Amino acid sequence: MFDYEFPLNINDLLYRARDLFSRKEVVTRFPGGVHRYTYGDLYRRVCRLAHALDRLGLKKGERVGSFAWNTHRHLELYYALPCTERVLHTVNIRIPHEHIVHTVNKARDRFLFVDEDLVPIIERVKERLETVEGYVVMAPPGKRLQTSLSPLYYYEDLLEDQGEDYSFPEFIDERTPALMCFTSATTGLPKGVEYTHRGVVLHTLAISLPDAANMSERNTLLLVVPMFHVLCWGYPFACTMTGAKQVLPGPQPTPADLARLIQDEKVTHTAGVPTVWLALLEEIESGKYDLSSLKEVLVGGSAPPRSLMEAYESHGIPMVHAYGMTEAYPVVLVSRLKSYLMDLPPEEQYRFRVKQGLLMPLLRAKVVGESGREVAHDGRELGELWLRGPWIVKGYYREEEKTRETFGDGWYHTGDVVTIDQEGYIQIADRTKDLIKSGGEWISSVELENAIMAHPAVKEAVVIAARHPKWDERPLACVALKEGETPQGKKEEIREMLARRFPSWWLPDDVVFVDEIPKTSVGKFDKKALRREFGDHYVRAREG
Amino acid sequence: MFDYEFPLNINDLLYRARDLFSRKEVVTRFPGGVHRYTYGDLYRRVCRLAHALDRLGLKKGERVGSFAWNTHRHLELYYALPCTERVLHTVNIRIPHEHIVHTVNKARDRFLFVDEDLVPIIERVKERLETVEGYVVMAPPGKRLQTSLSPLYYYEDLLEDQGEDYSFPEFIDERTPALMCFTSATTGLPKGVEYTHRGVVLHTLAISLPDAANMSERNTLLLVVPMFHVLCWGYPFACTMTGAKQVLPGPQPTPADLARLIQDEKVTHTAGVPTVWLALLEEIESGKYDLSSLKEVLVGGSAPPRSLMEAYESHGIPMVHAYGMTEAYPVVLVSRLKSYLMDLPPEEQYRFRVKQGLLMPLLRAKVVGESGREVAHDGRELGELWLRGPWIVKGYYREEEKTRETFGDGWYHTGDVVTIDQEGYIQIADRTKDLIKSGGEWISSVELENAIMAHPAVKEAVVIAARHPKWDERPLACVALKEGETPQGKKEEIREMLARRFPSWWLPDDVVFVDEIPKTSVGKFDKKALRREFGDHYVRAREG
Repeated sequence: MFDYEFPLNINDLLYRARDLFSRKEVVTRFPGGVHRYTYGDLYRRVCRLAHALDRLGLKKGERVGSFAWNTHRHLELYYALPCTERVLHTVNIRIPHEHIVHTVNKARDRFLFVDEDLVPIIERVKERLETVEGYVVMAPPGKRLQTSLSPLYYYEDLLEDQGEDYSFPEFIDERTPALMCFTSATTGLPKGVEYTHRGVVLHTLAISLPDAANMSERNTLLLVVPMFHVLCWGYPFACTMTGAKQVLPGPQPTPADLARLIQDEKVTHTAGVPTVWLALLEEIESGKYDLSSLKEVLVGGSAPPRSLMEAYESHGIPMVHAYGMTEAYPVVLVSRLKSYLMDLPPEEQYRFRVKQGLLMPLLRAKVVGESGREVAHDGRELGELWLRGPWIVKGYYREEEKTRETFGDGWYHTGDVVTIDQEGYIQIADRTKDLIKSGGEWISSVELENAIMAHPAVKEAVVIAARHPKWDERPLACVALKEGETPQGKKEEIREMLARRFPSWWLPDDVVFVDEIPKTSVGKFDKKALRREFGDHYVRAREG
Repeated sequence: MFDYEFPLNINDLLYRARDLFSRKEVVTRFPGGVHRYTYGDLYRRVCRLAHALDRLGLKKGERVGSFAWNTHRHLELYYALPCTERVLHTVNIRIPHEHIVHTVNKARDRFLFVDEDLVPIIERVKERLETVEGYVVMAPPGKRLQTSLSPLYYYEDLLEDQGEDYSFPEFIDERTPALMCFTSATTGLPKGVEYTHRGVVLHTLAISLPDAANMSERNTLLLVVPMFHVLCWGYPFACTMTGAKQVLPGPQPTPADLARLIQDEKVTHTAGVPTVWLALLEEIESGKYDLSSLKEVLVGGSAPPRSLMEAYESHGIPMVHAYGMTEAYPVVLVSRLKSYLMDLPPEEQYRFRVKQGLLMPLLRAKVVGESGREVAHDGRELGELWLRGPWIVKGYYREEEKTRETFGDGWYHTGDVVTIDQEGYIQIADRTKDLIKSGGEWISSVELENAIMAHPAVKEAVVIAARHPKWDERPLACVALKEGETPQGKKEEIREMLARRFPSWWLPDDVVFVDEIPKTSVGKFDKKALRREFGDHYVRAREG
């Protein structure tokens, strides 16, 4: 292949920004102020970093971990490692210590590049990191830290005396791994996947299409989704290829920080999980910011409740729902209305728009029912979503058994239970393990959650499968109310609301009120934590 | 590669239309009326055709020629051959007979699929076609022709009793040839190139990007560029992948036919060569049609004069200039303004917009001066454009020597002489063979032509290199005036106009007036024909 075809290399995405968009900006928010440079500067700093990686003695194919926020330095790592045939492993900064240790050891990272404020976390796990030979602290030039990490390097020192040009390989075999990422496992240890040059380039082209993320040089992107989270959904690559301005929110961004960045940098597009947009909504509604530049918000990671989409759209900000996963680089489905569905009344339009959407070009999908055959395209019959295609990974990194289980027949078995309608819109009913099996029948917790979140007093809601002595499992609603609301009478209101839409056996037997729904490391509702706390609610209730 | 990576197959573009856009339309204009069906119908007819190809005994890798207009049947051939691992050779219907014979023999086409009205042309060359074993006439069901072609098949008969489903190969090695096309040679015989599944899929993704052809399901495309002309610039694939409605203008479309299709089918986007848009302008200016649906016209094949762009934009129809060639599937450059250039005064904007534009993602380009090194990015220094990338072909089909000459060092030497400016916009000064070399210095005929075409009385203009006893070559302007205009005084006006912009030694020594500028088979100005007629103008003038 390699001596016959011109390969797909991440390098060419970077070269395009250097050659055509050297004046366009990359902006990073830091607590002390905004850092601003151009794609021309990015290219020169990537060259310096490539020289520094050589000096550290890193060989082809070797891995380096990043433990960092969304910053220009993290972006430099996104290019310097793949473009020199090494691999960047973006470590999730929010996972438990034992998972950090597991993922770094499993990836065999030789160095860890760590943001200054995250150094204390790495200090706590460093004794258990088996392959790391050195730590590179990412901090402003000249800044020194008190730390027990050793050997210790400073990112800006490493770059200082390096040349601003670099002889990248003329071609890289496109099957070469470029980045790696671990799933944020809800059960067991995280599993790793490798992303190749070929896969990244194809995914970049595909998500940039008008009916996907619609990436143009004219756009300004606020990259809210973390760079450690599945290639930041591909945005750092798509922005660079198309010359779009990138705005990186830096360490610990608050909703107010995001609102200010949208206003000050005239952000046109942004992407992230629903919980971020829930939080930002208060800032929008405060009226303190001019967010009129914002043309579209892409929401993924979990399904946005319709009430959230409506709230944004009442402020003139359309939301587009997309779906993906670590195993798919990650974008698989995007929910845009087909032209002829735009004539439907808004009510009907939302029925499609809250779904996960239409399959991206070049991917193949099957929805396989319990019988083993594909389900009807009726929007009702449930089946597991299976995927294959140019940016669906072939297995887990150094996990033969798990690979066989999930990818054994050439299809990636997502574990997501979905319906597909006559128009081809796919909707997740649930994770196979989040479905509630009551008396042998399935209940979709997601549909109940979305319905509950439409209640005006409800801030967030999750429905879990709680063990039940008679029905095996029964739904239990866990609800966080908006500030100033009290549980008084709410349980009844919620149950009445649900009773109008769902069969009576779907209704949660009880509602528990919590201060806040716990979140996973990537900002999704943490059902596992709630199951730990409330999984025996009906058993205890009976015993009590 | 094949057992490791999920391949890029044209099949998946078709499957997407079948699965997601089965209700969207493909419309063909025939003289007797409009033919209308859906992508669902297209898929079923492609299946029938695939069965028919099996029955004709066509094996993997074998070639079939098409000799046809832009119709739904031609579109069916675009899919049925590649998706069954055969190759479609789109024969140019407008080239000289000897070129038809050469290309069909060179491609070794086993069958020729011929539109009914083009049968007489094939009858005249059939004795010289060495490999063709049968002719398939594309005509309405039941229609019979008087023809000497034999053995003779009718397309609709072949499809009639076939099944509407077909077992396409699960995967095709992506390097497999899918289509082929010959250059419309201005000198010598046409040269063939092969297009692979991989190349077509990558080119389809790339041209569909927002900053290229901006292909969305919401678009309705009028495919004016002929389907025999470099994959119809990729539109049939991009439309099918994205679910855009396609409007095919059928046999011998007049400018009035195009205007009516735009109006009746609510066309939003179209693409073709400048001469088509020149001709359509009169229809637009007649005010007889409601063309308000039209959002953008893509113009390529040769550079649109600025006056043409202005004329369209005065009617609210933006024109986008793009550039490509047979050897590049074909799109290489697209000229859209960068966001920060949109603040320039319109005058300055046109300076960029009339250029051929910015390099597409994933391609690499060099502009190599006479010294053999790359030219300065100053918009002035001239050099030859060299290209390489995933959809630049590696050579000519069964032409070892020509391949070595043009592709020998791994770069495709385009033969186009260009400048590149600081922003990266590339502008064609000329074909190397169209440059005028006067007293050892180069003169760009294209720049002179565009300037002449800004004269209000001028319809079309070409500047050729005419032999000159003293200067070797001198520019000669060949001008066609608009209806009702007379040459009286025009020569002087044109020379005065040019004198304001160009050095005196650039000015054509003479202007000849012709009724019409001859066109090549793909609608470009035919400089070769003019050189034949007027190449000795200065020699004769001197002798006379």
